[in-house]
Amino acid sequence: MRWSEFFIPTTKEVPKDAVVPSHVLMLRAGLIRQLAAGIYSYLPLGYRALRKVEAIVRDEMNRAGAIELHMPVLQPVELWEETGRTEAMGDVLLRLAGPKGDWRSQTVLGPTHEEPITEIARAYLRSYKQLPVCLYQIQVKFRGEARPKSGVLRTREFLMKDAYSFHDSLECLGEEYKKMYAAYCRLFARCGLPYVVVEAESGPIGGDASHEFMVQTDAGEDTLVRCGSCGYAANTERAEARPVPQDEAEMQSLKDVHTPDQRTIDEVTAFLGLTPERMIKTLVYVDGSNGQGDDAPGAGDAVPVVVLVRGDHEVNENKLNRVAGASLELADEATIEKLTGAKVGFAGPHALDKSGAGYRLIVDQAVAGMRNGATGACKTDYHATGVNPVRDFALTGDHVIVDDVRLVAAGDACAKCGGALESEKCIEVGHVFQLGTKYSDAMKANYLDKNGRAQPLIMGCYGIGLNRIMAAAIESSHDDGGIIWPMTIAPFHVLILALDPRKEDVVATASKIHDELETAGIDVLLDDRNERAGFKFKDADLIGIPVRITVGSRALVDGMVEIKERRAENVEKLAPKAAVQRARDLVAAALKKLEQ
Amino acid sequence: MRWSEFFIPTTKEVPKDAVVPSHVLMLRAGLIRQLAAGIYSYLPLGYRALRKVEAIVRDEMNRAGAIELHMPVLQPVELWEETGRTEAMGDVLLRLAGPKGDWRSQTVLGPTHEEPITEIARAYLRSYKQLPVCLYQIQVKFRGEARPKSGVLRTREFLMKDAYSFHDSLECLGEEYKKMYAAYCRLFARCGLPYVVVEAESGPIGGDASHEFMVQTDAGEDTLVRCGSCGYAANTERAEARPVPQDEAEMQSLKDVHTPDQRTIDEVTAFLGLTPERMIKTLVYVDGSNGQGDDAPGAGDAVPVVVLVRGDHEVNENKLNRVAGASLELADEATIEKLTGAKVGFAGPHALDKSGAGYRLIVDQAVAGMRNGATGACKTDYHATGVNPVRDFALTGDHVIVDDVRLVAAGDACAKCGGALESEKCIEVGHVFQLGTKYSDAMKANYLDKNGRAQPLIMGCYGIGLNRIMAAAIESSHDDGGIIWPMTIAPFHVLILALDPRKEDVVATASKIHDELETAGIDVLLDDRNERAGFKFKDADLIGIPVRITVGSRALVDGMVEIKERRAENVEKLAPKAAVQRARDLVAAALKKLEQ
Repeated sequence: MRWSEFFIPTTKEVPKDAVVPSHVLMLRAGLIRQLAAGIYSYLPLGYRALRKVEAIVRDEMNRAGAIELHMPVLQPVELWEETGRTEAMGDVLLRLAGPKGDWRSQTVLGPTHEEPITEIARAYLRSYKQLPVCLYQIQVKFRGEARPKSGVLRTREFLMKDAYSFHDSLECLGEEYKKMYAAYCRLFARCGLPYVVVEAESGPIGGDASHEFMVQTDAGEDTLVRCGSCGYAANTERAEARPVPQDEAEMQSLKDVHTPDQRTIDEVTAFLGLTPERMIKTLVYVDGSNGQGDDAPGAGDAVPVVVLVRGDHEVNENKLNRVAGASLELADEATIEKLTGAKVGFAGPHALDKSGAGYRLIVDQAVAGMRNGATGACKTDYHATGVNPVRDFALTGDHVIVDDVRLVAAGDACAKCGGALESEKCIEVGHVFQLGTKYSDAMKANYLDKNGRAQPLIMGCYGIGLNRIMAAAIESSHDDGGIIWPMTIAPFHVLILALDPRKEDVVATASKIHDELETAGIDVLLDDRNERAGFKFKDADLIGIPVRITVGSRALVDGMVEIKERRAENVEKLAPKAAVQRARDLVAAALKKLEQ
Repeated sequence: MRWSEFFIPTTKEVPKDAVVPSHVLMLRAGLIRQLAAGIYSYLPLGYRALRKVEAIVRDEMNRAGAIELHMPVLQPVELWEETGRTEAMGDVLLRLAGPKGDWRSQTVLGPTHEEPITEIARAYLRSYKQLPVCLYQIQVKFRGEARPKSGVLRTREFLMKDAYSFHDSLECLGEEYKKMYAAYCRLFARCGLPYVVVEAESGPIGGDASHEFMVQTDAGEDTLVRCGSCGYAANTERAEARPVPQDEAEMQSLKDVHTPDQRTIDEVTAFLGLTPERMIKTLVYVDGSNGQGDDAPGAGDAVPVVVLVRGDHEVNENKLNRVAGASLELADEATIEKLTGAKVGFAGPHALDKSGAGYRLIVDQAVAGMRNGATGACKTDYHATGVNPVRDFALTGDHVIVDDVRLVAAGDACAKCGGALESEKCIEVGHVFQLGTKYSDAMKANYLDKNGRAQPLIMGCYGIGLNRIMAAAIESSHDDGGIIWPMTIAPFHVLILALDPRKEDVVATASKIHDELETAGIDVLLDDRNERAGFKFKDADLIGIPVRITVGSRALVDGMVEIKERRAENVEKLAPKAAVQRARDLVAAALKKLEQ
């Protein structure tokens, strides 16, 4: 391919909101163009990379025995009503505009495809003899992201590989899950991604167990914790740490201290001269599920839920909701004042009704082991010190739960080995879920077992964001000059620079190298533009093709061309024929390294 | 691939609305599943065929020098307002539901991509040096079809290849158009389609010249006329016929005849004892464009337009609108009665104001050459006979146009050679357009020419419906038993039937054949299901894999298996090794025949 016949609009200027490296570089290298917020075109160079990612994903899915199909974007909303996910998805679920009663007003754009695949399974998977089966597609998804950002990392339209497996036993699901997990490891490695697998929250997809595949980058919006000793890794949404040991200090007496206008942890610790871990954060929640999920214990409960975490800890709302069996949200001022008898900012558990009437109490395990904490006194402008669990507020009783409800942070002790946890920003590129029967129960997708009894299909689902793979590869492999593509997903393997494209010998040599590489099955791009050498070198670094061959008239006098790897410093001079061979060897070696 | 590990839900039952063969067979063979009206999933077997179509289309586009990119589905409505196509598309243009002012209410789903590609061209194609360039994508499209039907032939969501070319001269556009035309011929031939290229109307896409690629089938909703002598072919929306020669009969005198309650052509010809070609149909139109397109001559004109066609002819509204320079629609009763002074059904041109005041007259060429026609008398319950053009109503003057405004029909004389035209139902599988500057003018997409002057980009566009190719292939190649796939797009090349899959020698032989064919790069499916032979033969015919190898224990006693082509009657007995070779030869020969 010749640059002059291709379409690579490289540019120096990018909009101010492009901050993260993959976003900046994808725009500068002419890989993408924004059409609207969170909506991008893939320009030819970018689309070549995306297609290579797609081919690797498809290859690994086929190798794992998954079968490809293709479901539509448009879906009847009634399918989503069967599973109750019109509510769970909220504004993420995009709908067509149309008059009431019209087909359009009954149609949504698929943000994921559990519902239509379960409809297909319900129609065709009637017997245990047809199981297991794993179906997948590579297909465009739509989500009503309120705040798209970071280029193609968080968008409203994106390409996803989604696979769904169907089983007649949890053991069989477990085996498929392992198979998919292994396929994911292989495919991310093939794409050149330094990935980490972490334990994950299932979120609105649901299910019993899930893992995320993460790539570390400051551009990410997820955080993972990882143990340097044993390798334990989890999304902070999910991560657990070793329980904090019981503090054995002697109990001091409970005392109210005047703390006028000191409400936040920072204010109070500064005022009292305490460190944050001596504080008990007393938060008041209410059930925000509005009568949904009536089956969950505590759901629809009008009673406020008082939650205690240590002053230096944050509540993990996923854990909290699981523990509470409800969907909690922070209470309003009126509820807090009614419960505590004080202004907001002065709540404390010891000063509430000892019988537990009128509230529930959820105590984080780290608070349960504290001695002599400080917290609000349930009196405006007063805090209490010397607050001790058991003595001053109950850890047992019908209204109390003690559990792990906090976000794990860097420095916490690993739940598995006690080693120190580290924390990293990251992006999710894949997610595997053991769904169980969530969807088959809701949609009555049953098969007949060996005894002729109807049983709900047991399901797994397995997703990958293809655009994110591309961006993550750039996040983890670039320098100041531009992208450094992994060979497997590089839009071209080799870039030939014809430095003086008006000189016949340069053109002839460059064309010959081009043709020989192309014949050898190498994806090769020839920069034949009539531009300055410096300009072309800069563009070469920017678009990041892994191997560069430079043909200039000066070196040609000695019968030489130059070859350089994008990620290396050294330039090698070789005769054109040897350069072709060296390029082929470099490509083959890089592919082999990633694909083995 | 083994049938038992794949997913092919063949079925005998199809819904009543499945009538056309491709629809029935795609459902019965388990290629597709309807999720909602006009919205289909492609099940694994169907998706394999679709992917093969896609690969052929991509290959031919690349071969023609077009460059692949990928534009999003979601598009800001403001782009469509720039070109005025929010109006032209009407309900076909689907929008997202959202509160006023929200991004969603400003977002449409692309039914085609002229607007976003022109936005890309406007951003990057700044100089004549960058031209020509042809960009394409293979991407899902959405259209608000009011009445989806005929399976995947008319749907609301479909896969399209759309290419767009940009030029600095009409000559250059013409060359690209020829190149695309040739690529289309090659790719339809490769897909095994018996296609016809016809002259076409451009419709809401616009532009100066266009051709459609049609496949003849009764399932089609288009009609083409074709000359058996010279090969001229056109969509009836567009087709022209040779002018009807001047009738030289002697002029009779004009006479009013009492025809109480006889309004329609059928009624009047029966009553008067005339054949329909002796009648002049007098129709009254008004401009329905509501002030749009104010630049067009006659647009926004409140004056009724009287249109005359022969009694056995139909008005071609595309031609009529082009001739009138307006968007005409039939007038209401009041307008007709006011103009003619009679009830609807009795209009005639000879009885209108001779000066042409208060109306315009458009006379089809066939009427202009008539003698002694019959038409309405502009008197309720009266028709006139002996009506003669020139003598009784003007063919010249400011208010009169004589032109070709009728639908060509079977039996008309070919415009090129005078041969008899035939008419056929067909489906459109591709359409190429010379757009000119319609979009670049509207969106101010200019480049700088050699003299540094800004000029609008000259554009072409080229579309193919991939799902329709698949359905058209089935329409043109099936029998009572099922599909007969062209080898190039068959989901598998070879189907092996293991007739007694519980017998070891059958399984061993079938597996060996399967593995040898797979190793040779043949797409092979092994029916290893434990089902009756008759059942498996029926399914084999239904899914239509081109080559079938049958392994049964009876023939195996003699060391033989059977090989049969799906489209042939004869079965050949061969040793397994020879059958593998024969299958390879048959596949290679069929591919070569289609791909050369």
